[in-house]
Amino acid sequence: MDKADRYERGLAKLKEIYGDRAQMLVAALGEVAPDLSRYVVEFGFGDIHCRPGLDLKSREIATVAALTALGTAAPQLRAHIHAALNVGCSQEEVVEVILQMALYAGFPATINGIQAAKEAFMERPAKK
Amino acid sequence: MDKADRYERGLAKLKEIYGDRAQMLVAALGEVAPDLSRYVVEFGFGDIHCRPGLDLKSREIATVAALTALGTAAPQLRAHIHAALNVGCSQEEVVEVILQMALYAGFPATINGIQAAKEAFMERPAKK
Amino acid sequence: MDKADRYERGLAKLKEIYGDRAQMLVAALGEVAPDLSRYVVEFGFGDIHCRPGLDLKSREIATVAALTALGTAAPQLRAHIHAALNVGCSQEEVVEVILQMALYAGFPATINGIQAAKEAFMERPAKK
Amino acid sequence: MDKADRYERGLAKLKEIYGDRAQMLVAALGEVAPDLSRYVVEFGFGDIHCRPGLDLKSREIATVAALTALGTAAPQLRAHIHAALNVGCSQEEVVEVILQMALYAGFPATINGIQAAKEAFMERPAKK
Amino acid sequence: MDKADRYERGLAKLKEIYGDRAQMLVAALGEVAPDLSRYVVEFGFGDIHCRPGLDLKSREIATVAALTALGTAAPQLRAHIHAALNVGCSQEEVVEVILQMALYAGFPATINGIQAAKEAFMERPAKK
Amino acid sequence: MDKADRYERGLAKLKEIYGDRAQMLVAALGEVAPDLSRYVVEFGFGDIHCRPGLDLKSREIATVAALTALGTAAPQLRAHIHAALNVGCSQEEVVEVILQMALYAGFPATINGIQAAKEAFMERPAKK
Repeated sequence: MDKADRYERGLAKLKEIYGDRAQMLVAALGEVAPDLSRYVVEFGFGDIHCRPGLDLKSREIATVAALTALGTAAPQLRAHIHAALNVGCSQEEVVEVILQMALYAGFPATINGIQAAKEAFMERPAKK
Repeated sequence: MDKADRYERGLAKLKEIYGDRAQMLVAALGEVAPDLSRYVVEFGFGDIHCRPGLDLKSREIATVAALTALGTAAPQLRAHIHAALNVGCSQEEVVEVILQMALYAGFPATINGIQAAKEAFMERPAKK
Repeated sequence: MDKADRYERGLAKLKEIYGDRAQMLVAALGEVAPDLSRYVVEFGFGDIHCRPGLDLKSREIATVAALTALGTAAPQLRAHIHAALNVGCSQEEVVEVILQMALYAGFPATINGIQAAKEAFMERPAKK
Repeated sequence: MDKADRYERGLAKLKEIYGDRAQMLVAALGEVAPDLSRYVVEFGFGDIHCRPGLDLKSREIATVAALTALGTAAPQLRAHIHAALNVGCSQEEVVEVILQMALYAGFPATINGIQAAKEAFMERPAKK
Repeated sequence: MDKADRYERGLAKLKEIYGDRAQMLVAALGEVAPDLSRYVVEFGFGDIHCRPGLDLKSREIATVAALTALGTAAPQLRAHIHAALNVGCSQEEVVEVILQMALYAGFPATINGIQAAKEAFMERPAKK
Repeated sequence: MDKADRYERGLAKLKEIYGDRAQMLVAALGEVAPDLSRYVVEFGFGDIHCRPGLDLKSREIATVAALTALGTAAPQLRAHIHAALNVGCSQEEVVEVILQMALYAGFPATINGIQAAKEAFMERPAKK
């Protein structure tokens, strides 16, 4: 597969996950370092998120878990909570993933993760 | 629910996940700090792992992701890779969860996670 | 001990440590995930903080040290600096614990910890 | 070398790196814990930054890399991006160091690092 | 205070804490990087550990807590468990500090900390 | 550039850095997860390490700094200490980068980094 294909495939996956916000995310990343935006699309979404062997919902569960546990990536956690909801997680499932982190990363990581979930839930159109 | 119930319920969940190794895990934890073993059973398995709202397979996917990303808990990661396989993840799914961490925690975390998976896979009776 | 007892005991300990702010902390935690609030009270304060074998002041010294070193939990660090002062630490002792972290977690962790201390000290009624 | 010498030497190094902002940084650190300010000058700049064996530009490259990877020290990262630029790094080199961290600490650490760089670059007088 | 004084004062503090093992620790650190050994003695023990305002036992409680929470420094955690015991902590108090970390850094950090305590306790001459 | 080009370019860069060990590193990574090996070559070395704008020696200085500070990647730190030496760093410069981390990640991270350096230095043919 050539380079253009990876980018196109990644962008399509980004749109599948983030809908209309995809283009905005790409633009925001590219302001200071255009290549960073390209790597996220090509490698993050074109290579990794397009892999077979694990459904997209499970990938986002894994991501919300990891970012909650690390505790160093608040904006990315909020974005991936949206992604998780977009690909089929319920708000309850997102909350459960974050609660589970109390065991592995402690209560402060969980409390901050729940705070991120609260903010993300409020950013979404009402329903559910 | 009273205290005995939480412990019993946690131990049952531990056995559902780890089979015959459950009792051994409890004993190992309890050597220096018996209460630690009790908290893991009561809170970790009796409270958290028994919650509705997220299936057990998703819980282990979240856990493998978090421990891979943190990179500070090699023995626990290996144990939870076994748990993930025990509750229905395929080896391929475990590998995918760990690979996904390259995006969020970098390649060294992923490489060490794959190494843990390799060790866990080899500890299991042959077949895939 | 049954479940109600753990919650009551935890809440009493929370009030011993945080005074009037205890109820507010419980409410804030419970907004998105009521069970998280319950676990913090039951497990965090009913089980762990109520253990014998270490006085409350030493527990808060350990907590301020850990949260400063981790560097991922600014709101919780500020809360536990208040807790430390409430259970008998002097402001000087809190500063010393944070300074000590320069050795184990580096200067940025320490500088950010001192910043949290400064904010917490200013939130308290005047006197030392 | 006596104590006064270490402080003077450290302050001179701080001024070599930060110019007019040096005095302000020292004052800001010293508000709550004057000794912390002194340790940063004496040990951080008088001892470590004055060591032979590695040029100042390489030291700042190492520091920007470490703070980006840790992801827990946003204000210090921004300060050291200024330091790197002050001792001879180009903006492009700073961006490259941060991009490289995608491999070792993941994309969120890199994205947050690039954001810090963008803010630092905008704080500087126009040119370059 | 001049440089020789800081080193002498730090070494005396190291001996107060570690007894006969102090000289061995200094030698081990100095093999590849003699200055590292010197900095640990001068800054770590001569400056920080000699500060007034917090008793030595509280300093070691803070250190055991931080190293358990960070989870990246197994040999240093074991050394500071010895230090804590040497300056007056009971084994029970050390265990309590580590258990408390379950709240702030999760169970894997605590389990690995208890394992370190178990190893340190076994290295000590019998009696409790 | 098409996919084959990225792999070839990455492998060439890997060989430039690691010499004869490159092929062995690729093979070791590929045992459990062949795609991981491919991503490291394509993205890590074909994309990132081949970027203009920062010389290879500075890239390895940044990497040794980051891995020392994170403290979660001992095997990768040792490999990158070799890489740093291979692309022109002196042993003294590697030691200086690691010592500098005492300021940003604390002494345990530095001590463990120096230990990794000692091991890497001993694995190399004699001479300095």
